[in-house]
Amino acid sequence: MCKALAIDIGGTKIYNTVINDKGEIVADIEKRATPKTFEEIEAAFRDIISKYEDEVDVVAISTCGAVNNFNNGILGSTGNIAAGYPNMNFASLSKKKVFVENDANAAAWAEHVIGASRGLSDSIMITLGTGVGGGIIINNKLFKGKNGAAGEMHFKLRTDKHRKCTCGGWDCFEAYASGTGLKKTAEEISANPDITTYDVIEGWKNNDVLMTKIFLKWQEDILAGLIGLANLFDPEVIVLSGSMAEFVDTDYLTKAVNDEIITTPTAVVKAKSGNYSGMIGAALLALEERDDGQG
Amino acid sequence: MCKALAIDIGGTKIYNTVINDKGEIVADIEKRATPKTFEEIEAAFRDIISKYEDEVDVVAISTCGAVNNFNNGILGSTGNIAAGYPNMNFASLSKKKVFVENDANAAAWAEHVIGASRGLSDSIMITLGTGVGGGIIINNKLFKGKNGAAGEMHFKLRTDKHRKCTCGGWDCFEAYASGTGLKKTAEEISANPDITTYDVIEGWKNNDVLMTKIFLKWQEDILAGLIGLANLFDPEVIVLSGSMAEFVDTDYLTKAVNDEIITTPTAVVKAKSGNYSGMIGAALLALEERDDGQG
Repeated sequence: MCKALAIDIGGTKIYNTVINDKGEIVADIEKRATPKTFEEIEAAFRDIISKYEDEVDVVAISTCGAVNNFNNGILGSTGNIAAGYPNMNFASLSKKKVFVENDANAAAWAEHVIGASRGLSDSIMITLGTGVGGGIIINNKLFKGKNGAAGEMHFKLRTDKHRKCTCGGWDCFEAYASGTGLKKTAEEISANPDITTYDVIEGWKNNDVLMTKIFLKWQEDILAGLIGLANLFDPEVIVLSGSMAEFVDTDYLTKAVNDEIITTPTAVVKAKSGNYSGMIGAALLALEERDDGQG
Repeated sequence: MCKALAIDIGGTKIYNTVINDKGEIVADIEKRATPKTFEEIEAAFRDIISKYEDEVDVVAISTCGAVNNFNNGILGSTGNIAAGYPNMNFASLSKKKVFVENDANAAAWAEHVIGASRGLSDSIMITLGTGVGGGIIINNKLFKGKNGAAGEMHFKLRTDKHRKCTCGGWDCFEAYASGTGLKKTAEEISANPDITTYDVIEGWKNNDVLMTKIFLKWQEDILAGLIGLANLFDPEVIVLSGSMAEFVDTDYLTKAVNDEIITTPTAVVKAKSGNYSGMIGAALLALEERDDGQG
């Protein structure tokens, strides 16, 4: 059976494990903090790869940032990581083939193959974490656009330059729907610069009036984005994943989206492929591409 | 040579002509006002079709509203036309096959075959008129979504329920980027409820300070939408068509979009397939489908 060394790199953590072509995790999951410099990140990759490359068929990296259509390099800026990171030469990191995919695209693929959008031809997956990621499946294929960068959830929810986004632009969906966005919304509504996401979630769980108001404003901003996506893509399902997704009310969001869209009814659901969906999706894509290449 | 009777129905006008399989207009272009009731619209269709159906191979209707993937019926609400219109039984209108496509999808196809996005695999066309239409080409195919309704330009530019959209929702791109949107923006900025789109365009052309401020706010709202679309779709080109498109500065929009997006560079250009692109695109699609059907 073919296996991939799977690595997931985000703004704060690097994970790695080994995954087979059924999407099963077949080794321990290791984790370390994402280093602050390009050189340290490259050294971390080399450290992980040197340990496992002899026992796998391919290296599959699920990464923050937009990835090109050749699946070997980063295209755009990535707000939460060392500035030089987009220049990483991934192919040079291993004697085995190194396959790279955007983490949200990879997670969307995992949901499509083994998760909440399994068996559906058209779906959108949105990762709500520190930031926001997006992966779009059209006609059972990962939608990449002309160069591979499609599916970036950076469309504006305001036009008055109210809140800067990590992408360098203003007022993107990510700046409101992310965990970071929830904290900023909380700061604005509570006028308390020290308020945390944890404060909001705990307060909302305990029916605190102010915290509930903040939480619901955050959820309405997510809803606003989902309505636009459903009108643009007419998907069968919108899958929400990531650490912040567990708190949203998908039954409410499904009803509210369907009440407003002019396309056909969709469903908002939670992801099912687990915490390591980025690694699983990247591994499945890398092993599938390797099969195609040998084809 | 195969020919289609082409009909374009919008909120204010119905056009018709005959178009061959090269996209050439081969009859006079007739026009009438769109009637106010379902029965009168149906009578207008029957009147046009009875006159031409014996001399064409297919009837191709370019219509407002989202059209299903069978190209024979309307899916969603259509804000600018008689309320019963979505129930129209198009097939019953003629003894020839009646092919229906959304007007903006049809126009996007005309641009793809004979216009500004010719030869490009991934493009978005946006019609800026009384309302806003959208058509998206992905991998040289019209993108329709799971049921045919994809490409509706109803994503929100605000989340504070500031301006009602014709779709029934709030603060859609259409509500700001359309000609109607320009009038509403003008009313808000000038505090004059009687101001017209014509006043703004004429004032802007003559360097009137207030009218220029209004015009530029409208153009910035269009820019905000284009940035989101470029980040979601990573298209090779965004084509602007419709009566309001002639006024926008596509060189400025191209630069401003590329300055902010995190996907790869795109271009904002004006449409080239002319005023009757909806009829041309619908005819080309109808004749192509007919060819496919005949094998």
